[in-house]
Amino acid sequence: MSTPKPEDHIVALAGGVGGAKLADGLAHLLGDKLTVVVNTGDDFEHLGFHISPDLDTVTYTLGGVANKQQGWGLEGETWAFMEQLARFGGPAWFRLGDRDLATHAYRTERLRGGATLTQVTAELCAALGITSRLLPMSDDPVRTMIHSGERTIAFQEYFVRLACDVPVDAITYSGAERARLNPQLGALPQLQAVIVCPSNPYLSIDPILAVPGVRQWLTSLSIPIIVVSPIVGGAAIKGPAAKIMQELKAPVSAFGVAAHYRGLADGIVIDDCDRALAGEIASLGMAVHVVPTVMRSRDDRVMLAQSCLDLSRTLRNA
Amino acid sequence: MSTPKPEDHIVALAGGVGGAKLADGLAHLLGDKLTVVVNTGDDFEHLGFHISPDLDTVTYTLGGVANKQQGWGLEGETWAFMEQLARFGGPAWFRLGDRDLATHAYRTERLRGGATLTQVTAELCAALGITSRLLPMSDDPVRTMIHSGERTIAFQEYFVRLACDVPVDAITYSGAERARLNPQLGALPQLQAVIVCPSNPYLSIDPILAVPGVRQWLTSLSIPIIVVSPIVGGAAIKGPAAKIMQELKAPVSAFGVAAHYRGLADGIVIDDCDRALAGEIASLGMAVHVVPTVMRSRDDRVMLAQSCLDLSRTLRNA
Repeated sequence: MSTPKPEDHIVALAGGVGGAKLADGLAHLLGDKLTVVVNTGDDFEHLGFHISPDLDTVTYTLGGVANKQQGWGLEGETWAFMEQLARFGGPAWFRLGDRDLATHAYRTERLRGGATLTQVTAELCAALGITSRLLPMSDDPVRTMIHSGERTIAFQEYFVRLACDVPVDAITYSGAERARLNPQLGALPQLQAVIVCPSNPYLSIDPILAVPGVRQWLTSLSIPIIVVSPIVGGAAIKGPAAKIMQELKAPVSAFGVAAHYRGLADGIVIDDCDRALAGEIASLGMAVHVVPTVMRSRDDRVMLAQSCLDLSRTLRNA
Repeated sequence: MSTPKPEDHIVALAGGVGGAKLADGLAHLLGDKLTVVVNTGDDFEHLGFHISPDLDTVTYTLGGVANKQQGWGLEGETWAFMEQLARFGGPAWFRLGDRDLATHAYRTERLRGGATLTQVTAELCAALGITSRLLPMSDDPVRTMIHSGERTIAFQEYFVRLACDVPVDAITYSGAERARLNPQLGALPQLQAVIVCPSNPYLSIDPILAVPGVRQWLTSLSIPIIVVSPIVGGAAIKGPAAKIMQELKAPVSAFGVAAHYRGLADGIVIDDCDRALAGEIASLGMAVHVVPTVMRSRDDRVMLAQSCLDLSRTLRNA
């Protein structure tokens, strides 16, 4: 293992929990030399609040305040608001913790006052002592929509209210065609690599890639683009990635992930248990790095982050 | 003391804590034969919430869930939201408890969906098991404005942020001229009396009276209108009533209160300690009832309510 050179600046693309964990490992190694571009396709309005679930997950994780048991929200959370709201018959399907609510209220108030989502995200990160930069993929609204038979379902309806329990026929990103790439992406320091975190390819990464200009920007950088497979041993560590891949007739494997990113990614990090797939993946024209990828501890996050940096350096020097 | 006849229906006008206490006593005696018309002049928008402080105080008090120590908000309240909001540098001057927030979120969401404030208030009351009817004075916005020298100050700014610590030169009720009387007031059962609760005359009762049609409606009822003095022994039990009376050059006494309501009220209930003022008040053409008016216990509330009903019956039979 080698330490990153001080001038290295890395971009990571991330969605929810898995992405946030690797971003945390990268942040530990890179600090202010890391920019995380975060999916906002699952943002929504609820009870008048602008809620950005993936931004919150990444922010709370990098801020060291994420609720580890729950997989979302804040540690030490309390639920007085939800209890009282239920007493009034208010909507209970989306759980809002008392502290978490402060994030939503602060963000909503700032947006209403004319701030951009990028500005608000920077303020929340500063309050939590985060030195890495978190950027929403766009300051414009993009909304992931699930198409199931005749139905078109807003993302949180699908993900939370329906607990992903309907088959997915197609996924679209409403508003993406009009969304502008986050302008700060054009003003980053010299970049060394792009790491696509082990987030759901369809629900977390594709919304980012759907913003006009993102793919062109990534390929124009002429630096290694490394994907970490969220599929390990034919299953997703967390969330509906495997279920959706099956429904969309993609191979539910690290190979399926690699195929999904073909033409974009230069390398992929897959888990030890998927070693047998390495040759097949390499035939797609991708460098393959086989390491333990399941992140149970903080050390695991840092180790996987280091593996990604190692692979990117190998590819840069190739 | 006599028990109210079953057909009695009473209207009370109320603002904050003192008014809520008497309304609670009346509700104990009258149940669904009581309608409380509540001031909404101190309603405001904060963090995107529609907050109705007087409606909340009356609702919480009649629902038996008011915070007795604090004088506002809910019993057993927690403050995780405010703590976290402060961490983000969000506005801390108006304290929002975690449970209280559910009231504001529920109300705001329902109003945004097209419900009237009257409907939302009925829903909140039903959830808290309140059988008396609470009506906002109007479903249209009226905003109490404080004029101090050259400054015009929104009510909550004056009351909470400035802690009433500026002299009041005048008070106006912005929007009152366009506000429509709550339509349910025209559809009440046969009424026996109107009780003006011991709320601040300028900040709680006058906004109600400023809604076009309220004074005409009250006098057209041809039933006794009874005021309970919020000034006892030359001081207010709570809040800035005495300070404002002084600044507006009104006598700071039960006599001053009586003079304020001259031409509207038929009778006034004053405290034992103001017995010496009874003759002077009677010279204004008002019946005077002298009883203990300070409400320390639930029994005190019920006793004072009974005194008001007794006086109204005496006046009806006069």
